[in-house]
Amino acid sequence: MAIKPLDLTIFNRLINHGPTTLISAQVGADRNVMACSWSCTLDFFPTPKLTAVISATNYTRKLIEQSGYFVVQVPTRRQVRTVLRLGSTSKNYQPAKVDEINFWYADGYPEHPLVADCAGWLLCKVIPEPHNQNTYDLFIGEVLAAFADDEIFADGMWKFATADKELHSMHYMTDGQFHYLGEQETIVLSEEELKGTTKA
Amino acid sequence: MAIKPLDLTIFNRLINHGPTTLISAQVGADRNVMACSWSCTLDFFPTPKLTAVISATNYTRKLIEQSGYFVVQVPTRRQVRTVLRLGSTSKNYQPAKVDEINFWYADGYPEHPLVADCAGWLLCKVIPEPHNQNTYDLFIGEVLAAFADDEIFADGMWKFATADKELHSMHYMTDGQFHYLGEQETIVLSEEELKGTTKA
Repeated sequence: MAIKPLDLTIFNRLINHGPTTLISAQVGADRNVMACSWSCTLDFFPTPKLTAVISATNYTRKLIEQSGYFVVQVPTRRQVRTVLRLGSTSKNYQPAKVDEINFWYADGYPEHPLVADCAGWLLCKVIPEPHNQNTYDLFIGEVLAAFADDEIFADGMWKFATADKELHSMHYMTDGQFHYLGEQETIVLSEEELKGTTKA
Repeated sequence: MAIKPLDLTIFNRLINHGPTTLISAQVGADRNVMACSWSCTLDFFPTPKLTAVISATNYTRKLIEQSGYFVVQVPTRRQVRTVLRLGSTSKNYQPAKVDEINFWYADGYPEHPLVADCAGWLLCKVIPEPHNQNTYDLFIGEVLAAFADDEIFADGMWKFATADKELHSMHYMTDGQFHYLGEQETIVLSEEELKGTTKA
């Protein structure tokens, strides 16, 4: 496997299918990671952007507000227990919460702690929107850089059909219940279908 | 099958796993439906809310801005060709775009056109946020009511493990490529794991 940069014009493909994500941030030596199901593509143009809902009670939020940066990463099925733990515990009460998490850093991004062994990473800068942040816990991030592990995401596409299923993304529901992607298919519409109505 | 109201305190479960959605709206007799991958839970409290990215070029956006209402619904696999068509065509150029779509209406919600045969429906009212709408194409909706088809969603949970796979949600990627949920599992963490670190 090799971790490769992803063209920002297709950054959304890392999260377009709605996977559960991990959000990390740091201030100095203080790092944290939270689980987040509520992160979503916002835009490509003029800059790539995404949204993330980050509660005021999350320790990670303080780090994001202080540093102005955060990372949205897509964990894989083999990390599912870790994801549930990161989403079930808080560094507010467990200072050692992420002591066993391995991080790596991309060149030029020393303030973006990247959780190791994920499938993909989106390195973001907060676009300050105090009303959204204070009223809705809604953060908008400009995506500065993106990376993906080519064992599961290559040539701009997920390899769910052929890769080890332990590398698949997870889709959290509630009460510890996770769903995993299985089948995929590519649909090509006929000219008739694209006319919008077969009665026309 | 029976369509049943869903408790709004768990409305997010219809979309927590990141399915591709259909967004519909109407003004008088003018109805439309668009496909949307970029819709996401925003909050439960004090009111249930979600976000949706709706481009200024979408015909549906005009209907939403005029009526103040929209519906986010979760289509099923058997509707995949329809979803791709609804996302590949515009009523701006095809006035008959939704003539063959069947709609139903919930009691008390005559301005919320519900696309038939979906798995679930979230009936929303726009919370006006002109800056978000104009700058980011980002709409915030308060969820007024929710319904689900108990053949695929019952007792507050999806029945992906046991229901006909044609009823599963779809997760769009790009270029006609759809993923479908397959396996699911429920994880229960040990006390040791919840301590945050096994070294502690």
